[in-house]
Amino acid sequence: MEGQGEHHKPKKILCVGLVCLDIISVVDAFPQEDSDSRCVSQRWQRGGNASNSCTVLSLLGSPCAFMGSLCAGPVASFILEDFQRFQVEVHSPHERAACVTPTSLVISSAATGSRTILHMNSNIPDVTCEDFSAVDLSAFKWIHWEGRNADEQLKMMAEVARYNAASPPQHRIVVSVEIEKPREKLYQLFPHADVVFVSKDVARHLGFHTPQSALQGLRGRLRAGAVMICPWAEKGADAVDADGTLLHSDAFPPERLLDTLGAGDTFNAAVIHKLANGCRLQDALTFGCRVAGTKCGFHGYDGIADKLTQV
Amino acid sequence: MEGQGEHHKPKKILCVGLVCLDIISVVDAFPQEDSDSRCVSQRWQRGGNASNSCTVLSLLGSPCAFMGSLCAGPVASFILEDFQRFQVEVHSPHERAACVTPTSLVISSAATGSRTILHMNSNIPDVTCEDFSAVDLSAFKWIHWEGRNADEQLKMMAEVARYNAASPPQHRIVVSVEIEKPREKLYQLFPHADVVFVSKDVARHLGFHTPQSALQGLRGRLRAGAVMICPWAEKGADAVDADGTLLHSDAFPPERLLDTLGAGDTFNAAVIHKLANGCRLQDALTFGCRVAGTKCGFHGYDGIADKLTQV
Repeated sequence: MEGQGEHHKPKKILCVGLVCLDIISVVDAFPQEDSDSRCVSQRWQRGGNASNSCTVLSLLGSPCAFMGSLCAGPVASFILEDFQRFQVEVHSPHERAACVTPTSLVISSAATGSRTILHMNSNIPDVTCEDFSAVDLSAFKWIHWEGRNADEQLKMMAEVARYNAASPPQHRIVVSVEIEKPREKLYQLFPHADVVFVSKDVARHLGFHTPQSALQGLRGRLRAGAVMICPWAEKGADAVDADGTLLHSDAFPPERLLDTLGAGDTFNAAVIHKLANGCRLQDALTFGCRVAGTKCGFHGYDGIADKLTQV
Repeated sequence: MEGQGEHHKPKKILCVGLVCLDIISVVDAFPQEDSDSRCVSQRWQRGGNASNSCTVLSLLGSPCAFMGSLCAGPVASFILEDFQRFQVEVHSPHERAACVTPTSLVISSAATGSRTILHMNSNIPDVTCEDFSAVDLSAFKWIHWEGRNADEQLKMMAEVARYNAASPPQHRIVVSVEIEKPREKLYQLFPHADVVFVSKDVARHLGFHTPQSALQGLRGRLRAGAVMICPWAEKGADAVDADGTLLHSDAFPPERLLDTLGAGDTFNAAVIHKLANGCRLQDALTFGCRVAGTKCGFHGYDGIADKLTQV
């Protein structure tokens, strides 16, 4: 029975990466330096690419789990409760380690629509291969990595490859990776996944000016049978299939752009959700654009599946 | 035995007012609108005038208590733990009520020394007279109000006046109030305290350009026997004694100005600490300026008493 575990529980999608706290302050206008002003509203939101993708996977109906470090302190309680609210299982090797939860301050201006982000350097330890080895792989049908500590992530992917080699086809785990930041180290990850998400930012840093040229230029880095997907903001997203066919979907912009925070993570989740349920790449690509576009029309992620059906 | 309760426990100083969360981000330079940048450091600090004054009172050796509302959620845990760390007793009538803890974002620029503050509107309920009635007044020798919901605060002060009228002199409670914000409603509080702290901001809004003129002009609003204190930032602080004598202390600026957040609350606490221990107004005023100046030379409040002795 495909997609079912040994114990007849549906197999999950695991996302490995970062969880952080986003504190989003909406202001009438971006503040002047040295002034005192008042926010229109302020909200806390669980953030981080892998963490956001889990939220959306769960809301779309894919059982999923998150693996990443959590730091001691009150932010961890907020984050754990929020994961629970979205029924995301949490595997935290460093749960409540003595570190500082990464926090981003987002100042969102109602006047201009600008979002100014202040990231905080954090000493949060990344998930290591040793941490990953403690996980029972038979619970998962798909594992997605947010490209971060590439050396360790390569070892984890090798572990999945060994597991797959020893498993019957219906129990093999699909591997995906997101290469979002233009860092040389992350480019090692290209040939180790079945599905590679490469960002516009990385494509541009590697000298490509269109998603099509990026896919054609970077395709040689993939392993045989793998596909690559390249979202390009308001231009939609493109993909290259295992046989080299280029695919495209236009964007689905909302009537009013309200909140683009996490739109990329939403896109990834929607694509993975469709592919993990056996859909064709073109359908997954179009669905990804549709869900990401819908997401930009409201704050946060709540009720995203219902909002879609109203399209 | 003066200053001792019925049960021979030392009587405390109670501060009634706001507790909030300050998230302080230190940046190399104030961010451009719509940019992505990284903080040099970020810290959470319990804030709010009455809450800060409690921290300093406790560090100076005055047993004290805070009364104010706390909202449900992870911030309340942080705040409660921090009060505990500074041995401040907490009376929270609305403990973990369904409200949002007021949070201020402070962007502190290392380049210019500027501090840009984004306050958040909050629906936190203020302490009412009914809440206050539940407190056993015999535990306190001094009650300080941060002027906020003046109508209710007047009723609380009337309750203390009734308590005092029915108590032997050695058990009477001294009442102080801080009038910091230039709001008409708060000016009702002037004649209801033994010690009134009036801010530079209020003095200016009322048309006074020096602390001396403010004290002389506003003295008529006090009740007989009361004193008024007016801190004036880098110019030090002035006071008027019950007999009309004007007093002054210069400021004690630190070698390097590092953190002025809460300097006013530190001043109030240091003055109250001295007066509550029987010192003369001039000594309390000078001590207030010295402690507040010391505070501006380092981040937060930890170890402030030790830093003082090294002056």
